[in-house]
Amino acid sequence: MLVNGASRNLISIRDRGLLYGDGVFRTFRAEHGVALHQHLHLQKIQQDCTKLGISCPALSHLEYELASLLVAHPNAIIKLIITRGIAQRGYAASADAEPTHLWDVSALPVYPMQNYQLGIALRVCELRLSQQPLLAGIKHLNRLENVLAANEPHDAKFAEGLLLDAQGNVIEGIRSNVFIVQGGVLMTPDLSQCGVAGVQRDRVITYAVQHAIPLQIRAISLVELLAADEIFLVNSVLGLWPVRQCENRHWYDFAMTEKLAGLFEQERGL
Amino acid sequence: MLVNGASRNLISIRDRGLLYGDGVFRTFRAEHGVALHQHLHLQKIQQDCTKLGISCPALSHLEYELASLLVAHPNAIIKLIITRGIAQRGYAASADAEPTHLWDVSALPVYPMQNYQLGIALRVCELRLSQQPLLAGIKHLNRLENVLAANEPHDAKFAEGLLLDAQGNVIEGIRSNVFIVQGGVLMTPDLSQCGVAGVQRDRVITYAVQHAIPLQIRAISLVELLAADEIFLVNSVLGLWPVRQCENRHWYDFAMTEKLAGLFEQERGL
Repeated sequence: MLVNGASRNLISIRDRGLLYGDGVFRTFRAEHGVALHQHLHLQKIQQDCTKLGISCPALSHLEYELASLLVAHPNAIIKLIITRGIAQRGYAASADAEPTHLWDVSALPVYPMQNYQLGIALRVCELRLSQQPLLAGIKHLNRLENVLAANEPHDAKFAEGLLLDAQGNVIEGIRSNVFIVQGGVLMTPDLSQCGVAGVQRDRVITYAVQHAIPLQIRAISLVELLAADEIFLVNSVLGLWPVRQCENRHWYDFAMTEKLAGLFEQERGL
Repeated sequence: MLVNGASRNLISIRDRGLLYGDGVFRTFRAEHGVALHQHLHLQKIQQDCTKLGISCPALSHLEYELASLLVAHPNAIIKLIITRGIAQRGYAASADAEPTHLWDVSALPVYPMQNYQLGIALRVCELRLSQQPLLAGIKHLNRLENVLAANEPHDAKFAEGLLLDAQGNVIEGIRSNVFIVQGGVLMTPDLSQCGVAGVQRDRVITYAVQHAIPLQIRAISLVELLAADEIFLVNSVLGLWPVRQCENRHWYDFAMTEKLAGLFEQERGL
């Protein structure tokens, strides 16, 4: 672990990351010494810092630290957190606050192969996401909704939970972004009111645009999702999982999903 | 400072308080070696822990630690944070997570006497609070909305900012609870969808009930607030401030507010 460039695993109890969740994060998957899509992650965390008014360390500096971690941990999950730093009492941020940036490393998780080949069972969470346009899309440290949703009692067969907003629109998975395919059109929820815009969501969107696959980013109801031809989930740790079951609906054919999954696999080293 | 009973000012970067804001807090005002309304604060933090499924340390243990801090810091602001503790990667809380509890001490702030005597100027924040009934009322560590509201550019004459929800209802101040008086009736916003229920809000409510002052806890629009006979704000650090200005409205008479403020002053040592 690194905190502000020093090898340590502790931060101040006065760090605004702890006090208010006043910070952002991104999670990298490292394989064979390469942090997959590292530039996209760094670009996103820099954008998120800008949205919250946190001064992001220079990307060249973050790249340098990441490179040193990759030497010691070539195959790992690497998490980067940037907070607004230590400050005086009170919610208002002092202009002279120095941001804190820290890296944490953990082992690559192993998921069942059938999650990739047959798809996963997706439960619909009871919690409804709140709507805050000023925070929507940002991968910030205020994640109590995700914690509560993950802690809802549920059968272990469900590998992920689906989060809706108060209007019943589909937003995302607890730790993933969601896409549906309907009549050859790829769709993903609009995240202007809530949700986290992950790097893999951006990659799918970019791919669709580049390959002229019809794409819609808009409100998607649960009814629409359950009527879709295909559903899949993406995130940077797990990659891409098709959905084989949600509520009473089952899916067996993943033509578009497999096409995208193949592309994701090819591009891993980039 | 104390972290899990030990004299230190650092916590693990794997603490869920940092990673997810997965914890709660309360702020005590200590005067002459007494933490004002300590039992109310401890009761509230215990209730908040229960709502989030965090196992709260025994109150007798927290009281013991607080007493030791009061000997060294008889006049201070003392903050207690309880988090779900250190955990494995992922939003789901492991059943065996040991909570972290920590205390931080800072100097008593000094506010202008006119805030108490003439009242303060209150601005209306641009940010609208999001609605999450599962978190409403709880003083949890997901406080980015308060941070963004406090950081909105504003004239320094405004000592506090008023937060509304998306429907335009008044909820609270950035760091205080709000009451209005209209025709002899005391009113405070319903906090079932958003907002933090502070100890001082409970005290005012209890006082009203005990003294048969008509009290309403309900949705209050900004228009209603601006038409009120009196407005005042409460929190455990600043006590009670009347409002002398909000938008284009000015107030000069604080009959009910002064009655309550007098009571608050008398009860300080309890």
